[in-house]
Amino acid sequence: MKLEIESPLDMHLHLRDEKMLKCVAPLSAKYFSWALIMPNLIPPIKTLKDVKSYKKRIKKAIDKEIFTPYMTIFFHEELNYEILKELKPKIIAIKMYPDWVTTNSEWWVKIIDLKKIWHIFESMEKLKIPLCIHWETNDFVMDREKNFIPIYEMLAKTYKNLKIIMEHITTKESAIFVEKFENVFATITLHHLYITLDDIAWWMLQPHLFCKPIAKRPEDKEALLNLALSWNKKVMFWSDSAPHPIHKKETKYCSAGIFTAPIVLQCLAELFEQNWKLKNLEHFISKNAQNIYWIKPKKKIIILEKKDFVIPELYWDIVPFKHWKTISWSIRG
Amino acid sequence: MKLEIESPLDMHLHLRDEKMLKCVAPLSAKYFSWALIMPNLIPPIKTLKDVKSYKKRIKKAIDKEIFTPYMTIFFHEELNYEILKELKPKIIAIKMYPDWVTTNSEWWVKIIDLKKIWHIFESMEKLKIPLCIHWETNDFVMDREKNFIPIYEMLAKTYKNLKIIMEHITTKESAIFVEKFENVFATITLHHLYITLDDIAWWMLQPHLFCKPIAKRPEDKEALLNLALSWNKKVMFWSDSAPHPIHKKETKYCSAGIFTAPIVLQCLAELFEQNWKLKNLEHFISKNAQNIYWIKPKKKIIILEKKDFVIPELYWDIVPFKHWKTISWSIRG
Repeated sequence: MKLEIESPLDMHLHLRDEKMLKCVAPLSAKYFSWALIMPNLIPPIKTLKDVKSYKKRIKKAIDKEIFTPYMTIFFHEELNYEILKELKPKIIAIKMYPDWVTTNSEWWVKIIDLKKIWHIFESMEKLKIPLCIHWETNDFVMDREKNFIPIYEMLAKTYKNLKIIMEHITTKESAIFVEKFENVFATITLHHLYITLDDIAWWMLQPHLFCKPIAKRPEDKEALLNLALSWNKKVMFWSDSAPHPIHKKETKYCSAGIFTAPIVLQCLAELFEQNWKLKNLEHFISKNAQNIYWIKPKKKIIILEKKDFVIPELYWDIVPFKHWKTISWSIRG
Repeated sequence: MKLEIESPLDMHLHLRDEKMLKCVAPLSAKYFSWALIMPNLIPPIKTLKDVKSYKKRIKKAIDKEIFTPYMTIFFHEELNYEILKELKPKIIAIKMYPDWVTTNSEWWVKIIDLKKIWHIFESMEKLKIPLCIHWETNDFVMDREKNFIPIYEMLAKTYKNLKIIMEHITTKESAIFVEKFENVFATITLHHLYITLDDIAWWMLQPHLFCKPIAKRPEDKEALLNLALSWNKKVMFWSDSAPHPIHKKETKYCSAGIFTAPIVLQCLAELFEQNWKLKNLEHFISKNAQNIYWIKPKKKIIILEKKDFVIPELYWDIVPFKHWKTISWSIRG
């Protein structure tokens, strides 16, 4: 049995920089047609100059593969209409991280802070630049995504023409909320379709399964899986593949992130097949994102075949998701 | 300022065996008058012979300190009235772990299993041997303690004269439940008075804060702290101090357990002082347990003084709780 996937898209990819970029970028470039590149380097990608230079480094790292890195910038308070207009042809979205808000503030305080940046949202709305938000409140770790929903709601109501992407949703509340407003969309990672907090901390603590947002409850995983499998046009795959070398995971303070880039297609094929939804996979992994982001990627066919693939224990010094596990689908070539 | 504590008791201590026993036992023996020793070695302490031999090894490890190790055995289905009667003079309680029940069964299935061992509970009731239970269901990690409460309730109602100790409670539901039945008591660890899941996984994942039961929500911690501070006669301190060498914590599969033995008294003094409850500390750490277990330990005075104590980064190759932190109380001598 084989499965052709046209132009798979990774809607959220961390490629890092320098040595790590050179290692991991070719893996994504091999299996994906394009990807939305996260801007959270140190320092973050904020300006047109940053974007151009980072894109150049990515292009160099991926060599001759058919692969388009679509760039994003890091949301910051200095943005305005003129800057955004200049950025528009070079970026596909703006990524907002929670860091810019005052830490330890209640979420309603953040709403007040938000008022200072209304004009940026208005400009993005006019210029048709989508807003990707990784946002959680400063509440208890299991509540913070759920508690951010009132802010998504306020933004969605206020900027009806601004496309708002709820990044890597992890709760049943988010899965329900995404249906509520026409201008709200969501991305889901591979690992949040597989794991809950039980996998991280049930038996022994497993640092390689630690990511942000942290995996939640079984009923949350169930809701995400149903959404991903359902041919829902508002939902896109993104890997959020985040490579960390072993010494940053198996240590006193373990970094958040799960490395999935080279194994996502195989795992998704298995998951969709197990649930009798293989026909919906291309929508989840390519077509929905093309419609949401108004783009048409270069055609690139990835062929998967029903053949066992044993996930390696390591890619260089990075432990991948589901290492040692056997997946029933492989990528041809 | 100084504080005298008469005969501090550690109601739940893991001393392990061999090399680890020799390292950690003297630390507890120095600061405590006695301790209730956990039987979960590999293989577990189950028989009179096991008890005698393990006690001998402990005595040897602690040398000449005034310190009584009170022994427990591992609950198992072969126990009966005759065996218990023989064990009675040598043990202070029986510890029940969840492992003996069928894994992956629903909690109501466990109730059926429990019926096979009714006679053991009856014998313990007759012989006045308390039952310590570390019990959680097989449910989602954040729910499993809460979901076990119906079983505690059934046991408490059925065996009105059996003292049932809810071990290392971690939820507000348990804090409420302990008041409900005369024959139900509870122990609380130091670390569950300090941490929540946020401390383990809010920022980076911290394996040295990983323990079982896992620390729960802020409102749970609050309820435990109120109970510990409150001069409540049904509540005892236990450290659940569980030493693991660094290579078993900072690794792919991290063992559960927090090492607190040499720092608990200092931390408790600070915590009780900060909450204006220093006068209640001796009850929490000694007097309540003496009443509950019908025992009178040898008198041993530990003197704490208001003087900074910097917790070491390491005790041998074990990272202690709150390493590097400065505590405002020290132990004299």
